[in-house]
Amino acid sequence: MRSIAQNAELALLLEVAGTPKPGNVDREREYADLRFEHFLAGAVGARSGLKLAADPDGPPIGEAFERAVAGMSDQRGGNTQFGALLLLTPLARAAGRGNLSPSGVRAVVESTTVTDAAGFYRAFEHVAVAVDDPPADMDDLDVRRGSDAVPTLHARGLTLGGVMERSADRDGVAREWTEGFPRSFGAAERLQERDGSVADRAARVFLELLADEPDTFVAINHDEATAERVSERARAVLTGEEDADALAEELIEREINPGTTADIVAAGLFVALEEGLEI
Amino acid sequence: MRSIAQNAELALLLEVAGTPKPGNVDREREYADLRFEHFLAGAVGARSGLKLAADPDGPPIGEAFERAVAGMSDQRGGNTQFGALLLLTPLARAAGRGNLSPSGVRAVVESTTVTDAAGFYRAFEHVAVAVDDPPADMDDLDVRRGSDAVPTLHARGLTLGGVMERSADRDGVAREWTEGFPRSFGAAERLQERDGSVADRAARVFLELLADEPDTFVAINHDEATAERVSERARAVLTGEEDADALAEELIEREINPGTTADIVAAGLFVALEEGLEI
Repeated sequence: MRSIAQNAELALLLEVAGTPKPGNVDREREYADLRFEHFLAGAVGARSGLKLAADPDGPPIGEAFERAVAGMSDQRGGNTQFGALLLLTPLARAAGRGNLSPSGVRAVVESTTVTDAAGFYRAFEHVAVAVDDPPADMDDLDVRRGSDAVPTLHARGLTLGGVMERSADRDGVAREWTEGFPRSFGAAERLQERDGSVADRAARVFLELLADEPDTFVAINHDEATAERVSERARAVLTGEEDADALAEELIEREINPGTTADIVAAGLFVALEEGLEI
Repeated sequence: MRSIAQNAELALLLEVAGTPKPGNVDREREYADLRFEHFLAGAVGARSGLKLAADPDGPPIGEAFERAVAGMSDQRGGNTQFGALLLLTPLARAAGRGNLSPSGVRAVVESTTVTDAAGFYRAFEHVAVAVDDPPADMDDLDVRRGSDAVPTLHARGLTLGGVMERSADRDGVAREWTEGFPRSFGAAERLQERDGSVADRAARVFLELLADEPDTFVAINHDEATAERVSERARAVLTGEEDADALAEELIEREINPGTTADIVAAGLFVALEEGLEI
């Protein structure tokens, strides 16, 4: 029987194994400087931090997250799974507390402190993450400041849950944090309902989630119109008007990566594995 | 910096990620009942045992091996990495003792006891492994007896090193044990000399090793003539007379899996990672 941390690591591996996952690195597509093997190393490296997250008596989840990101970053591809780890960390803590459910993870979010927020900010020192410019009143809290922002966090008494709330309108991962992880739990349900290999299910659920909502990582790196257009194209794949592989080739070519949607699939895989999905 | 156990797990993942690896499951080829994702889960599950193997003050390596195999088996594909773990276990212990070299691993092999041999036999109870019938005088020591063979091991005072010696003429993994892991260290050297992605290097070195020597897993599951013919075909790929992908398709079709060669590539990847190969 796999531990919580093992399931979290396996979720990261299964996510990247699913193909075609238009726009993202998968088993059959990669970039010269961001390869499939970087995701393998990222998943292996993240496990120690995930183990801390899964331990109900472990360190604050901000620290566990930072450790997971530090381990993930021990490869040359850069940011492989930052967003996925930001979802997996509170989910692993909820699982460790024996309540992996929307209310269980809400309780984890509500119990976060300023110390957790500081861990989150420190995590940005381990790896370059594509983020949007913060709103004017949050300039001191630009995540790219890393630990330099910690005094401001303390001054404003901002918890990690609070930090996420301030980004929820622009970032799909933060939105999961504030809403009880609805898309992650929804993905888990879909993954369990389908047949076939788990990697194939992951690729299918990725397309469905992408069709449902524009990817915020695409919106940040390109713009909202591009993100909306990508979701339209995903809907066209689901109705059979477009070919998934052709779309995958095109988006990789254009460097359009729906990374937030992939993060949510990873979170869904973790929940599904914890709920008994067999490999 | 990755730990020894992390590098061992990553080696298993990189091995299966290399493609084309004619005859074996890889990133682009799989069987309906033995899929890429089974290898991912196998690698994740094996790590706890590998961690025990890497600890110089840990339990006997036979026990560490059994734990690694038990963890590996927690998926529905069956035997994914038994042979690779049999190579990685003593290599990880040698690394843990600070001497990952032919002489270092020879010392590990020489220090094995009957208790280690018992752990090795118990490992066969976790998963079905394709093995040859034992010679007439070794019927009581058929590995398929699992722990039922343990009294005979004690009666004959057989260490794990001794068990391997008795299979070295028929089994390529056992031969590594008796000869100081020459092909594993050789593979590590080749992996480090090449350019390109590590997964691509692993696929290339797989072909070279297969061209060098008939695969004993193919000889056991089919016959020696088939194993020799597969090595000839691998040589033809290296000289450009045959296409690697076409050969991969054909061997998968015919269910001819050069598994021992893949095991040695995994061992080589581990040594290379420990020696500083970057991902």
